[in-house]
Amino acid sequence: MAVLGLGAMGGSLARALSVLEPGVRVVGWSPREEERRAALDVGAVAAAPSDWQEAVAEADLVVLAAPLSASCDLFAGVAEATSSGATLSDVASLKAPVARAATSAGAEARWVGSHPMTGSEESGFAASRADLYEGARVWTVAHPAAEDRVPRVQSLWRALRARPESIDADEHDRLMALASHLPQLTSNALAAVLREGGVLPTRLGPGGADMTRLAASGSAMWRDIFEHASPELVAGLRALAREAAKVADLVEAGDLDGVEELMNATRAWSRPE
Amino acid sequence: MAVLGLGAMGGSLARALSVLEPGVRVVGWSPREEERRAALDVGAVAAAPSDWQEAVAEADLVVLAAPLSASCDLFAGVAEATSSGATLSDVASLKAPVARAATSAGAEARWVGSHPMTGSEESGFAASRADLYEGARVWTVAHPAAEDRVPRVQSLWRALRARPESIDADEHDRLMALASHLPQLTSNALAAVLREGGVLPTRLGPGGADMTRLAASGSAMWRDIFEHASPELVAGLRALAREAAKVADLVEAGDLDGVEELMNATRAWSRPE
Repeated sequence: MAVLGLGAMGGSLARALSVLEPGVRVVGWSPREEERRAALDVGAVAAAPSDWQEAVAEADLVVLAAPLSASCDLFAGVAEATSSGATLSDVASLKAPVARAATSAGAEARWVGSHPMTGSEESGFAASRADLYEGARVWTVAHPAAEDRVPRVQSLWRALRARPESIDADEHDRLMALASHLPQLTSNALAAVLREGGVLPTRLGPGGADMTRLAASGSAMWRDIFEHASPELVAGLRALAREAAKVADLVEAGDLDGVEELMNATRAWSRPE
Repeated sequence: MAVLGLGAMGGSLARALSVLEPGVRVVGWSPREEERRAALDVGAVAAAPSDWQEAVAEADLVVLAAPLSASCDLFAGVAEATSSGATLSDVASLKAPVARAATSAGAEARWVGSHPMTGSEESGFAASRADLYEGARVWTVAHPAAEDRVPRVQSLWRALRARPESIDADEHDRLMALASHLPQLTSNALAAVLREGGVLPTRLGPGGADMTRLAASGSAMWRDIFEHASPELVAGLRALAREAAKVADLVEAGDLDGVEELMNATRAWSRPE
């Protein structure tokens, strides 16, 4: 197997694979020499050549673990550098752009995309850990022509104790706009308000700390994602703006029944019977 | 010592005090018989009489651990039922309303209010735990006439490994509007948008789950708090609405530099050098 990208996601994947029984030989690659060396030093990879062509040459499964746009950019080259028997996967947070890259590389029959819903607000190999995928939902996306390769990729995730589930690429991306991208930007928006209000992060309790944890996320990965943002994200942000204004009106008017109704509704949503 | 209220806050306080060395004799009271029995059963309290007058009679420190309005309502009676040497404290999330209750009971020289910034989205004695206060910031508020009683109350919190810090009541309540109440309602607003969008809580990743955890909080405690909401909370909610709309505009316009600028600013805020 080859893992291209040894940051928090790829590094964690290599670490987890390296302790699997029966073993999988993992060749890793990162554009950053210190990450290749670190991955070798801790035994996360068996080899870490400085060019990715060498890393993928013998692999029968290649996982692109670079940021979204880099994964898309690498796709055609990786498809070309590998045999037609090799399965290609990735761990990017959006699936439609990767599906398009697979199709334009003529490799849609070899691609089974993955999106593990886990990660870290930290980045780089230093933020990787062998148990990152344990218990995580992993969405898998495949063109009908690649259906026969889905079990292999899903088994791999199951071996890492993740929970794979198939989904359509567009449906996945629409769902993520609300389930992942909106919570991220809500955290940023809240943090911006607290910052503007002169509240130091050290003054927050555990609730406020949870609500602003994502605001520490690096912008580079997200920039990529927002470039391909679904219209659902914009609609979700506008709905949040309306909801916040509505709550402001309720609190200002002293309409405690209205606030209680909102709280009861969201509690019921978060704790379904 | 007496603890009035044996929910998540009071129950945790009694549990933590019961394992302190040297020991403190804690008498607990709750309006709910099953909570009094549960606290006795686990040894969190030495006694749990069914009326609070009996619970406070011999105490030289009484902590009101009822919801905010109930703590205010109990104040005058507790002041009357205790000797002038007894110190009165509370753990309510707002301090100005309790300060007013202390003053109207003529007991401002005996009151050192506390607000531990910890808790649970669960409530009741079942949600209490002995380590709830470990590491938590605890704001203490006192009238100048009660300054000599502050060390006793702060020492108690330190014995539970919490981090007490003095603050003015009004300043505390203004800070909490942004640091605590705004994050709570942001979580509710986000959850309302996800609910409306048909996103199930089980589809969220760890980030989305963190951002909606507070949306499961019970409304009863919060209703009390919002009744005394600072104007800063309304202003904060309106600022959040503007910020969310601004981010929607940026994403819609494909202004990725603008999104990145926001993310970098909030990251810098949350990770000060």
